[in-house]
Amino acid sequence: MDDIKTFISNALREDIGPGDLTVTALIPPDTDGKGELIAKEPLILAGIDVAREVFKQVDPLTSVTANYIDGDELTSGTVIASISGKLASLLTAERVALNLLQRLSGIATLTRQYVDRTEGTKASIVDTRKTTPGLRALEKYAVRIGGGKNHRFGLFDGILIKDNHIAAVGSLTEAVKRAREKAPHTLKIEVETENLDQVREAISTGAEIIMLDNMGIETMKEAVRLINRKALIEASGGINLNNVRQVAETGVDLISVGAITHSARSMDISMEITNA
Amino acid sequence: MDDIKTFISNALREDIGPGDLTVTALIPPDTDGKGELIAKEPLILAGIDVAREVFKQVDPLTSVTANYIDGDELTSGTVIASISGKLASLLTAERVALNLLQRLSGIATLTRQYVDRTEGTKASIVDTRKTTPGLRALEKYAVRIGGGKNHRFGLFDGILIKDNHIAAVGSLTEAVKRAREKAPHTLKIEVETENLDQVREAISTGAEIIMLDNMGIETMKEAVRLINRKALIEASGGINLNNVRQVAETGVDLISVGAITHSARSMDISMEITNA
Amino acid sequence: MDDIKTFISNALREDIGPGDLTVTALIPPDTDGKGELIAKEPLILAGIDVAREVFKQVDPLTSVTANYIDGDELTSGTVIASISGKLASLLTAERVALNLLQRLSGIATLTRQYVDRTEGTKASIVDTRKTTPGLRALEKYAVRIGGGKNHRFGLFDGILIKDNHIAAVGSLTEAVKRAREKAPHTLKIEVETENLDQVREAISTGAEIIMLDNMGIETMKEAVRLINRKALIEASGGINLNNVRQVAETGVDLISVGAITHSARSMDISMEITNA
Amino acid sequence: MDDIKTFISNALREDIGPGDLTVTALIPPDTDGKGELIAKEPLILAGIDVAREVFKQVDPLTSVTANYIDGDELTSGTVIASISGKLASLLTAERVALNLLQRLSGIATLTRQYVDRTEGTKASIVDTRKTTPGLRALEKYAVRIGGGKNHRFGLFDGILIKDNHIAAVGSLTEAVKRAREKAPHTLKIEVETENLDQVREAISTGAEIIMLDNMGIETMKEAVRLINRKALIEASGGINLNNVRQVAETGVDLISVGAITHSARSMDISMEITNA
Amino acid sequence: MDDIKTFISNALREDIGPGDLTVTALIPPDTDGKGELIAKEPLILAGIDVAREVFKQVDPLTSVTANYIDGDELTSGTVIASISGKLASLLTAERVALNLLQRLSGIATLTRQYVDRTEGTKASIVDTRKTTPGLRALEKYAVRIGGGKNHRFGLFDGILIKDNHIAAVGSLTEAVKRAREKAPHTLKIEVETENLDQVREAISTGAEIIMLDNMGIETMKEAVRLINRKALIEASGGINLNNVRQVAETGVDLISVGAITHSARSMDISMEITNA
Amino acid sequence: MDDIKTFISNALREDIGPGDLTVTALIPPDTDGKGELIAKEPLILAGIDVAREVFKQVDPLTSVTANYIDGDELTSGTVIASISGKLASLLTAERVALNLLQRLSGIATLTRQYVDRTEGTKASIVDTRKTTPGLRALEKYAVRIGGGKNHRFGLFDGILIKDNHIAAVGSLTEAVKRAREKAPHTLKIEVETENLDQVREAISTGAEIIMLDNMGIETMKEAVRLINRKALIEASGGINLNNVRQVAETGVDLISVGAITHSARSMDISMEITNA
Repeated sequence: MDDIKTFISNALREDIGPGDLTVTALIPPDTDGKGELIAKEPLILAGIDVAREVFKQVDPLTSVTANYIDGDELTSGTVIASISGKLASLLTAERVALNLLQRLSGIATLTRQYVDRTEGTKASIVDTRKTTPGLRALEKYAVRIGGGKNHRFGLFDGILIKDNHIAAVGSLTEAVKRAREKAPHTLKIEVETENLDQVREAISTGAEIIMLDNMGIETMKEAVRLINRKALIEASGGINLNNVRQVAETGVDLISVGAITHSARSMDISMEITNA
Repeated sequence: MDDIKTFISNALREDIGPGDLTVTALIPPDTDGKGELIAKEPLILAGIDVAREVFKQVDPLTSVTANYIDGDELTSGTVIASISGKLASLLTAERVALNLLQRLSGIATLTRQYVDRTEGTKASIVDTRKTTPGLRALEKYAVRIGGGKNHRFGLFDGILIKDNHIAAVGSLTEAVKRAREKAPHTLKIEVETENLDQVREAISTGAEIIMLDNMGIETMKEAVRLINRKALIEASGGINLNNVRQVAETGVDLISVGAITHSARSMDISMEITNA
Repeated sequence: MDDIKTFISNALREDIGPGDLTVTALIPPDTDGKGELIAKEPLILAGIDVAREVFKQVDPLTSVTANYIDGDELTSGTVIASISGKLASLLTAERVALNLLQRLSGIATLTRQYVDRTEGTKASIVDTRKTTPGLRALEKYAVRIGGGKNHRFGLFDGILIKDNHIAAVGSLTEAVKRAREKAPHTLKIEVETENLDQVREAISTGAEIIMLDNMGIETMKEAVRLINRKALIEASGGINLNNVRQVAETGVDLISVGAITHSARSMDISMEITNA
Repeated sequence: MDDIKTFISNALREDIGPGDLTVTALIPPDTDGKGELIAKEPLILAGIDVAREVFKQVDPLTSVTANYIDGDELTSGTVIASISGKLASLLTAERVALNLLQRLSGIATLTRQYVDRTEGTKASIVDTRKTTPGLRALEKYAVRIGGGKNHRFGLFDGILIKDNHIAAVGSLTEAVKRAREKAPHTLKIEVETENLDQVREAISTGAEIIMLDNMGIETMKEAVRLINRKALIEASGGINLNNVRQVAETGVDLISVGAITHSARSMDISMEITNA
Repeated sequence: MDDIKTFISNALREDIGPGDLTVTALIPPDTDGKGELIAKEPLILAGIDVAREVFKQVDPLTSVTANYIDGDELTSGTVIASISGKLASLLTAERVALNLLQRLSGIATLTRQYVDRTEGTKASIVDTRKTTPGLRALEKYAVRIGGGKNHRFGLFDGILIKDNHIAAVGSLTEAVKRAREKAPHTLKIEVETENLDQVREAISTGAEIIMLDNMGIETMKEAVRLINRKALIEASGGINLNNVRQVAETGVDLISVGAITHSARSMDISMEITNA
Repeated sequence: MDDIKTFISNALREDIGPGDLTVTALIPPDTDGKGELIAKEPLILAGIDVAREVFKQVDPLTSVTANYIDGDELTSGTVIASISGKLASLLTAERVALNLLQRLSGIATLTRQYVDRTEGTKASIVDTRKTTPGLRALEKYAVRIGGGKNHRFGLFDGILIKDNHIAAVGSLTEAVKRAREKAPHTLKIEVETENLDQVREAISTGAEIIMLDNMGIETMKEAVRLINRKALIEASGGINLNNVRQVAETGVDLISVGAITHSARSMDISMEITNA
């Protein structure tokens, strides 16, 4: 939470800079205010504690009472939270709080759609490293709130051998061998495959996770059959809401979707002053 | 650029942390590499210098030769830039460079679509403060690259009197009066209006910019007629690619669109290793 | 306030470093202490909350009870505030607290002298960017406390076209034209003029603010007549306590004075321990 | 220099923020420029390398050729340095560079006046901790350039026992005793005295430095006689350009003057563009 | 390397603070100097690039020519590197450079002793999280240089279920089950066992790594037999240079030793000026 | 304490990074926990407030009740402190808290051994600048807790003229002369000597502290006789627990020992959960 506090502090500095000129000129500092955060469309809530922290950093005396918790599915018009404190503080904090809440709820909502489409299968929806620079921890949190699972956080906590690595090393087998020798023994080794020959080679290396990259549905089914539970299977590449169910039904364990973080649209949420 | 360097440094720390385990285990540090950044769909390029800085920070010896500059309209398959250096450095830098390039190009591309739809009118497309926390300078840059104009950067460099401010102060007239007295004399005063009565009141205060918030097309036309060049006119709220042309044709000067920053999807750009 | 807290934290680190050796060696940590901040000459108080923050950062248990608020005019000998807490904390915090309080009160006091001299005219005293690096927000605050108004905060929130800009562009008219096209529409355009010909040219461009730089009193009067309320008028250059009244009586709206921030002397304020 | 680089970087961020709007709108980025820093009044130069660093940070390609070095005595009209580079960079850097150069030269010039007045005596002019928060290293540097000597940098590198410390401990003798026991053996012990009885007591403790605080000239002479080279003697309090010679002639070793840092006015220095 | 640069910058700030008083007073800034880093006892070299960075940060013009690379085994008296530059810079940088080089070489040397004792067995020596706060990346690097392997970097890149976790959850089996469900699928699960019953339970859960904590040699042998390559085996607790060979010969894969980082003594290395 | 808070915050970030995966997966966030910090060997306690701060930063609701204070001599098995709070928080904070407590207690314990060996002599044990980069303030604190005294903190608060300085300047006498002229008058001048001729020369310069570097016992005795209380005497170089008593009995005032900070081993302290 410490890093998130610093992140929010920087976001407020970016927006407020030397001061909120409009509020300073217009709003007496002692005027009390009440406001509500309202969902203007159906959404999965994510980031309410982050929004609270924004209001608190602008003014520790602001009180945010949330009616819902992250993960709740809200209808349009729902009052997410009530806020009270100095009116000036509410107005100054509004935009940064909403920017974060809208974005995180957007990610959670989109993730939930993918999760819903794969209901009843064994497949989990997982995120990627295609996140907004600086917001990875928050965005991966929103994925979990949406029902997804997190893949590795960064380059430092997972081994994922991709086509470029394999080409550089010479062969998939040699690549896995080097990883086994040099990488920390605490990490599973994941290797990307692009066809069934590579899948067979990956199986023979004992790789703990095999990624099926951009394969057709039938090829994936065959890969699942070949692997036969000897490794975890992750489908990746070109997956969208239209085809995710088909992919899930091939029997893969994990489906990674970059779009849930890099292309989610912000949900429409607004703050309305109720006493002004 | 100094702040952007720090931003990139933090983004790399977020992704790489204590080290790129896969590359360290697999790729000999002295192996040379060449790669290309390739547009996988039509797009307006934005962020090529940012991507270059990412590669440079990972390894100052990496060379990035761009074939295009920001603002160029590229077709699918275009080689945006060639990169050469140590293969390990290229692979470690890839994701952060792409995450930024894809996002900024996404904003520029979406902005350009709005700009194109309003061609031939006097209206400019302008951004809002609905940007990603921490990325405002970059995202506003991408808006300019897409042909848009920037609204105020934050709360500190513009006066924008909204409904909540007016309600708190008691009247639009009083609000503008206070701003005129207390805000820096170097800033124009912008006031939000929701109907023609408020437009008339705004005109009478001498406000330099009048925002028409969520008005219908006919109302906007009447507002433009009433204001009659005595103030700049900004249309705002509920504007999308379908209705932006109609709005522009009402004669407003500025059209602000939050979606160009908060809901642009990332463009598809990839790095391909060409020598491995 | 967040940036000011960081500023104070750095100031304390600068002064205290690894520790207050004298206090550590001499003063038992549990000894209670009381002290008073005393004005040793007549002054306008500015910075009492900043001084309080210094004491609080050294020791959150220190209590500062102010008898006056910023802007009050104090006579020599006035007890500004009473302080109680651990004696060691009071002594360690003393110098940084006084350094800030003395400087800010110095600026407020000098500003007030300029303001008093222009009483009854329409002219406001405004500051410049000639502030101490790192202290701009505090020093501009002290100017407001002294009755002055703030000019733009920095290069990012105002357009001020000076002689060097005009020379580089080729003409005053062209300079204003470019600013109108490219600068944010939310900012007024100010242009510096050095003679009546330039004043006439500035009027013709529709610049919203016209600066009269280093003009004689009679020239200023004529400029005011020419401009005839079509723009705000700012007098600048060579203004001091002796001539500021004459300048104000020419009818200008604003008089900018660099000396109120760059050459104010510190007021004499001391902390006296009352219980030791 | 590392801390000074950070200080300058922060000063530039404070002034430039998201960007120099005027320069960006008006000056083509590729236009070359030349300028000169010119002394507009007689002064002792201090801070030329600091000014150079400002120009370099704004644009590493800017070249600053100094005609003088810190400590030189300049007449009005002297060209201190020539600057060449991109015109935009020169204009953006100008204010921060001048703000620092003017302030530091102001301190050096004022210090030199005190030093000149004491010429031929054994007394050195020394500074105090009454410096601008955040600028202590720079301001103490300017004191040295002006011919003064530095007292301790902060609370961490010197022992100075003042009246409040003595009162808290119970007696001057006990205070020196505690300092001798607990403070680092590498530091001399300085004790403040307010009358001849305290001077005698200080002598008996073996304190290595004795401060004569706010004493009359005759009392100082007697104190010097009593101390008789058994300790260094520092005069302090109420010293100005009018009485500093008298104080120096009492035979004290050091004269500390807070005003040289806290109340020096900025020297008048300007940048003139020579090719625009 | 970026974080290490910041770490070194902070270390220099800690040591040098406002300036190296002795060098400033004594050594002319233009005097050239040459020096040598000399091993005063047999050691495994680690940290030569870190030491170079220290010299470079103090003065970029300092040149460090290393005769050996990290991992080399040096005899007493070996000239590790030659340094040339300004004498003042060499003297100011000396202590921080040596402090780091001595500590890292100490860790590498001690690690190598453990590695040598286990030569010919399949066991690897691995480090723990018992590192100096702030120096983990450097200390784990020194372990690798000494021939050891790194365990997880921190709490974020490995799953290690210890006795306290098991007790809190209720059973070892339940603990592994929860980890399998909730922890990232990219990480192996390691579980600590204290006796053969726990070893059997761990085997049944399919944990990928089983730690044998503080077991006797015979118990370890039986555990190795029971596990029978179905999991990696890590011995931990109470291991020293006297018993590490016996432990290695039980057939475990990994032996973790906290002492190689938390209790290594610094190697004796000195800098000698050769031209002064 | 502010810097120490930042130091601890960084240490926690280093260890926890994006999160404690094991605790997050296994331990319900609301489960309460109790634990004890237990000395597993005899030791001098140092750092209990630092450990408390670690627990507090991880979770402000954690309560740490210490049974002993820094400086207490504890037997093996002693319960140093009781901790209660959320179990998850206790487990996440454990390692960083222990790493610091073990290291600082190690330094205090080793220092105490040196102090005990010199009991009854006038010699004080003092530390050096051979500390862990980044931990100097903490390590010097532990030295004081162990009964030692601190030498200068860094290069900025003491003058220590070493052989390299003397060689560069030309003579010991000239070196002291320059220091007297240029260094702050508040600092004593210490000069290193390697033989009796240098001792005699040092005496003649009036240096306030004379270091006897790597001298034999008999030579030191003669040096003490020569100096005859005209300066403080510091013995340095090659001093260990076996010979420190002999050195102390020569009559020196100070004995500096680098090993107490650079080569102390960590004390064995563990946290045991008592309620799980």
